[in-house]
Amino acid sequence: MKNSKFIHLVDTTLRDGSHAVSHQFTAEQIAAIAGGLDAAGVEYIEVSHGDGLAGSSYNYGWALLSDEGMLKAAAGAIKKSNLTVLLLPGIGTQEDLEMAAHYGAKAVRVATHVTEADIGEQHIGMAKKLGMQAFGFLMMCHMAPPEKVVEQAKLFESYGVDFIYVADSAGAMLPEDVKARVGAVVEAVKVPVGFHAHNNLTMATANALAAVEAGATFLDGACRGLGAGAGNAQTEALVGVLEKLGYQTGVDFYKIMDVAEDIVEPIMHRPQVVRNAPLMLGYAGVYSSFLLHTYRAAEKFNLDPRDILVELGRRRMVGGQEDMIVDVAYQLAQKRGGA
Amino acid sequence: MKNSKFIHLVDTTLRDGSHAVSHQFTAEQIAAIAGGLDAAGVEYIEVSHGDGLAGSSYNYGWALLSDEGMLKAAAGAIKKSNLTVLLLPGIGTQEDLEMAAHYGAKAVRVATHVTEADIGEQHIGMAKKLGMQAFGFLMMCHMAPPEKVVEQAKLFESYGVDFIYVADSAGAMLPEDVKARVGAVVEAVKVPVGFHAHNNLTMATANALAAVEAGATFLDGACRGLGAGAGNAQTEALVGVLEKLGYQTGVDFYKIMDVAEDIVEPIMHRPQVVRNAPLMLGYAGVYSSFLLHTYRAAEKFNLDPRDILVELGRRRMVGGQEDMIVDVAYQLAQKRGGA
Repeated sequence: MKNSKFIHLVDTTLRDGSHAVSHQFTAEQIAAIAGGLDAAGVEYIEVSHGDGLAGSSYNYGWALLSDEGMLKAAAGAIKKSNLTVLLLPGIGTQEDLEMAAHYGAKAVRVATHVTEADIGEQHIGMAKKLGMQAFGFLMMCHMAPPEKVVEQAKLFESYGVDFIYVADSAGAMLPEDVKARVGAVVEAVKVPVGFHAHNNLTMATANALAAVEAGATFLDGACRGLGAGAGNAQTEALVGVLEKLGYQTGVDFYKIMDVAEDIVEPIMHRPQVVRNAPLMLGYAGVYSSFLLHTYRAAEKFNLDPRDILVELGRRRMVGGQEDMIVDVAYQLAQKRGGA
Repeated sequence: MKNSKFIHLVDTTLRDGSHAVSHQFTAEQIAAIAGGLDAAGVEYIEVSHGDGLAGSSYNYGWALLSDEGMLKAAAGAIKKSNLTVLLLPGIGTQEDLEMAAHYGAKAVRVATHVTEADIGEQHIGMAKKLGMQAFGFLMMCHMAPPEKVVEQAKLFESYGVDFIYVADSAGAMLPEDVKARVGAVVEAVKVPVGFHAHNNLTMATANALAAVEAGATFLDGACRGLGAGAGNAQTEALVGVLEKLGYQTGVDFYKIMDVAEDIVEPIMHRPQVVRNAPLMLGYAGVYSSFLLHTYRAAEKFNLDPRDILVELGRRRMVGGQEDMIVDVAYQLAQKRGGA
């Protein structure tokens, strides 16, 4: 077991949480949250548009602040923590990464679909040249079997990452799924392994614990769970539970609770509860970007949108295949008609 | 393994959830929820004041409706499910139980503190005479070691209960705590065993799954988690997760989701999120009735109330010992002064 009693925490309130406030964090809010997280002892504070550097756009949602504006606000409030950015190759560029380093980012999470680690190679090389810590971050890991996740993790390792993350981006995993994937990666690579949970099935904290049991030493959280869809593991609860289990995180439980309740909660647009849409996305294991298309197709063919989501999940459809949703709905409707 | 692929569900939206709406459910709301749960296939629908039959009072909070009014509203809407009531000996009486049976209650959960099953003997005898199914329901099970829980479960069994519940009333357990207690009870008794979760540590669904792994075949939930403090396991999520794992519940996943979103959610006074107070109660493992006294004592002695809660948990204080909170706070303050 690698250093199993200390768990490194990455708080992503200011990145994944950005989705939940439609990317409208102000400089004052960013400074207050980043300063609070820093004072509470959080080791990595992720600050970016929800879709990473350069995510602010018509497609992904315009942010109130520029990337520079967000990073400046956070950097000015951080004393000890590692300011961290997210970069999705294809959205963020190497120029964006240089800018982030310039404004004080100490680490970057290079995130790719679970089968596409290879598109992250150049960005990881650039990060290392810039002296940054580099995370290889594999998204939507529920869609690939453990051996595929291992293959991609090894690619990331060969590019020189410092850490590898298994991300349950759709919140579709249950503890055994997490253990199978995280455990296999821990076995296969030399670098520390982390896990990013979503709460679609109300299992975010439990899945994070399963990852730790399987050897993960990095975990993600967000205060009050703030994040896309059903949100993330709730950082303050994660800290409390890890403490109860005898793990150390370096985070002050009371202080992180205060950040959540006094700073983050008042900013939230809506409570991070598990309503039906995120629950169904987790159950079916599909992209949240499928929702709108699915509702439209359901109306057109007089189907329950949930049946379409389940079928999309069964077919392992991935982002970019939204056009095929109408075909799937058509086929389902035909089958119903013929039954 | 006892019938391990079918999990019997008890929905307690209309009982534990009553706490979360200050016991103000209307007859129309009760009929709508009970009817929805029944149509979705929920096997047991618990309907009572949050503190059980005769709970409506100055001490426990006045309910909008009488027990009779609640049960009539529910019974009129239920076709197949078992209308179920909660009874806490010392609050509810045998007369209350006769009344409940008269209005159609098919089952009663006789709930006692984990060390006090003996006060339930008469009520269980009465329930059986009335032809009702009887559950022995052990509350605050995190406060007793597995062997004590077993001893009390056996007492309940000797009184003739049909089912025994292990309840994590303070939401203080983690999966290993659940497995230890539920597993030991399953080993020791012949009747089916259930588990009632609370979400204080964001672990309600995960703890319910742990109970099933340990042999439980009954689980509690509430739509949207509606319940005291951080609330319960979210019934609709529980159904989805159990389905994903291959268990059957007899509950239609889509229909129970619709009950949660279309009927229960609009009635809720506030979203069932894990704020700091319930998180701390779960972390410390203490009664929610301690909160107000703790805040007062903290102010008096200039302490963080959270330190007092942790100390109360460490001393395994139970309900009724609220007067001792000031003493505990005084001792903590003395220790601080001398340090």
